[in-house]
Amino acid sequence: MPSSVEELVELLDLEAIEDNLFRGRQPDTQMQRVFGGQVLAQSLVAAVRTVPGTFACHSLHSYFLRPGDTKVPIIYDVEEIRDGRSFCTRRVAARQHGRPIFFLTANFQVPEKGLEHQDKMPRVPSPEECGPVPDLESKYDDAWLREWAALDVRPVPSSRDAEEDADHAARSQWWIRASGELPDDPVVQLAAFTYASDMTLLSATLTPHDRNVETEGMQVASLDHSIWFHRPFRADQWWLYDQASPSASGGRGLAIARVFSQDGLLVASVAQEGLIRLRS
Amino acid sequence: MPSSVEELVELLDLEAIEDNLFRGRQPDTQMQRVFGGQVLAQSLVAAVRTVPGTFACHSLHSYFLRPGDTKVPIIYDVEEIRDGRSFCTRRVAARQHGRPIFFLTANFQVPEKGLEHQDKMPRVPSPEECGPVPDLESKYDDAWLREWAALDVRPVPSSRDAEEDADHAARSQWWIRASGELPDDPVVQLAAFTYASDMTLLSATLTPHDRNVETEGMQVASLDHSIWFHRPFRADQWWLYDQASPSASGGRGLAIARVFSQDGLLVASVAQEGLIRLRS
Repeated sequence: MPSSVEELVELLDLEAIEDNLFRGRQPDTQMQRVFGGQVLAQSLVAAVRTVPGTFACHSLHSYFLRPGDTKVPIIYDVEEIRDGRSFCTRRVAARQHGRPIFFLTANFQVPEKGLEHQDKMPRVPSPEECGPVPDLESKYDDAWLREWAALDVRPVPSSRDAEEDADHAARSQWWIRASGELPDDPVVQLAAFTYASDMTLLSATLTPHDRNVETEGMQVASLDHSIWFHRPFRADQWWLYDQASPSASGGRGLAIARVFSQDGLLVASVAQEGLIRLRS
Repeated sequence: MPSSVEELVELLDLEAIEDNLFRGRQPDTQMQRVFGGQVLAQSLVAAVRTVPGTFACHSLHSYFLRPGDTKVPIIYDVEEIRDGRSFCTRRVAARQHGRPIFFLTANFQVPEKGLEHQDKMPRVPSPEECGPVPDLESKYDDAWLREWAALDVRPVPSSRDAEEDADHAARSQWWIRASGELPDDPVVQLAAFTYASDMTLLSATLTPHDRNVETEGMQVASLDHSIWFHRPFRADQWWLYDQASPSASGGRGLAIARVFSQDGLLVASVAQEGLIRLRS
């Protein structure tokens, strides 16, 4: 995993092999499988590279098919699905060892104005009040900490408005940002957010259950991942990841998250279903 | 549009042209464009037909690319993306006049057991207390009423718990069912729900805005559509479509809905972004 924002930025910069064909580098990592956020973010960058600069990504939908191999680069093959005047669509196949490991479809729009509304930001303590993940340094070794050093991640303590939680069976909130300044390029900001959006999301599906993923040997894996980008924002400034899980059943859990900038703008919505399988 | 549940069932029964290639019929309609729910449901049926009966659909993601032509049939071309032991994935291209009008990817799983939780059903009046859409018969002519006769749709009046709405910028709730009994076949039930799930969803994005889509000449169109199926249910028995819109901006609105059976089970979640463009 990228051990600094500089390495994260390098990870998000693909090598162009041919028109619509890209190669993504692999970070040094001890992980056995490629982090889903990496494939997501690199796929998005590949799609963006094939779209005129007047268009901005407003949504993406993806499925994880097979675990990625951290030992070889990932090839991103972009299909031009549609080019319209105000919208265009791209599909990206991520491939390793001759097989697709992931598919993403992204939609782009020439920015326009229209009706405006948004959910109110929930009242939560500030990132400074929340502090880093408890016992992070004692629980994990230096190698693990280096893996995730490009992100600054702070769990919001669970004491919240009772009225807000009456509506949610499961909820988990985090303050997240890149751990250093990123380039102003909106594509890098978007891709860095996309990278980070896969890290904590499934945790919401487990909050009502007293389970220890590691000690119980649970199988937890992302199945799909969708993002709707509502308003521009920076991934290197704090954003609140307000994750809720409406349902778990059948060995799967669904998490839906709202993303707020610290000044209260709703900047994105995210949905992910994950496999949360108990050891049988 | 199908003017009865019998016609709806016929609409959902595709003609097999070749392995993985199907043709969907068109209903008699006065509509200029194919109803999105029809393309969604027919695509899902095409995907199901290529998957072993031991698998059940647990999610789908789709993009609407071009308006469908109601005068010619739609071809559904299914690509086998992956066949695993417990999951498999299909992608469906819906084509007319040699061009894709719609893409859907669906994921299937061999049913298994696991962790269970779900959001509580909001307190709303029963379908019997809600009654049909006000002034439906005086507002619309017989032809229009016949178009939608396969569905029984009742808006829930907007007086709800204040505590539940503190969290939502925009909300719209409906009781919906097929207007007569459907075959027990779970695929027909699933497809009929999918058909209906595209009808009222974008209405949630307009509730905070005092706008008349028809008289103001607004351009309203589905951009994408995702469904996660949590638990089996029947589309011919009442289900509550609890729709909320977290955001509208940039000429687009996002709606996210929870689907509850009348006895309080959370049976599905749905997300759709739509173009909600003011006349410029």
